[in-house]
Amino acid sequence: MTDTIKRLRIYTDEAAYFGDQKVFEVVALRARAAHVAGTTVFRALFGFGHTAHEHRRHVLDDDQSIVVEILDEESKLRAFVDSLSDLEHLGPVMLEAIEVLHWPSSDRGRG
Amino acid sequence: MTDTIKRLRIYTDEAAYFGDQKVFEVVALRARAAHVAGTTVFRALFGFGHTAHEHRRHVLDDDQSIVVEILDEESKLRAFVDSLSDLEHLGPVMLEAIEVLHWPSSDRGRG
Amino acid sequence: MTDTIKRLRIYTDEAAYFGDQKVFEVVALRARAAHVAGTTVFRALFGFGHTAHEHRRHVLDDDQSIVVEILDEESKLRAFVDSLSDLEHLGPVMLEAIEVLHWPSSDRGRG
Repeated sequence: MTDTIKRLRIYTDEAAYFGDQKVFEVVALRARAAHVAGTTVFRALFGFGHTAHEHRRHVLDDDQSIVVEILDEESKLRAFVDSLSDLEHLGPVMLEAIEVLHWPSSDRGRG
Repeated sequence: MTDTIKRLRIYTDEAAYFGDQKVFEVVALRARAAHVAGTTVFRALFGFGHTAHEHRRHVLDDDQSIVVEILDEESKLRAFVDSLSDLEHLGPVMLEAIEVLHWPSSDRGRG
Repeated sequence: MTDTIKRLRIYTDEAAYFGDQKVFEVVALRARAAHVAGTTVFRALFGFGHTAHEHRRHVLDDDQSIVVEILDEESKLRAFVDSLSDLEHLGPVMLEAIEVLHWPSSDRGRG
């Protein structure tokens, strides 16, 4: 394994749908199907400005932002992002450098 | 646009006020007024140590930490931080490098 | 102080115990005892894949992921991670580069 572990962050909001599924659930299900090393989904208190999808109802209550964090090797993360190209209503997607100090041992493998 | 997109993170806590407004709401309202590209506000389960404002009531329940994340070009983020210099009770403020893989199209513009 | 401020991130889940204490509480208590500059604990909406500890009950509801963020000088953060070596059920632990733009003044000192 010469690949570097990075963190992928995908912003969306809870009210964004792809067909009849929430976008963040589609992303998480695909991440699971792709056997990425780890996925964590955060719900923000609020957010605005990220997606064309947003509704401007209130000054500070526009949408329920969701951030999906995925940890894996960089090449796998880039391939995963490619697999999301059919999704609308995705907010910014970014890759972040990290230095891994500890990685849990697992008998599930990671490949 | 030669500027690099970065992420700004501003730590504060829910009990911190500026006049009669919560500090994190002031920050979010100013971010909106400054037309930053995207703002996301997270409420932590708990936190301690970041601000002189903290109360040490319980070992693990000192304050309700809030993190405001803002995405935009680095120069705009630095100017935004300058615009917060009148606020007390701000915790750490930091700039983080990211590699943007996807940015939502928008007819709202970003400049 | 020639050391660089970095951010440590420790992933675990709410159902992970060390003895009769939750792992994330043990981590937070040790962080406080070590007088780190600041600690923030986030509870995710859900997560999967990070720890051998996870239970696969539902497709998108496997565990209640927790992320502990700690800010301090790099050398102090590395020493803190060493102090967690007895903990099982820790997920990934990573160090992240940040550029500090503002640091709250404090009469508590920082170690």
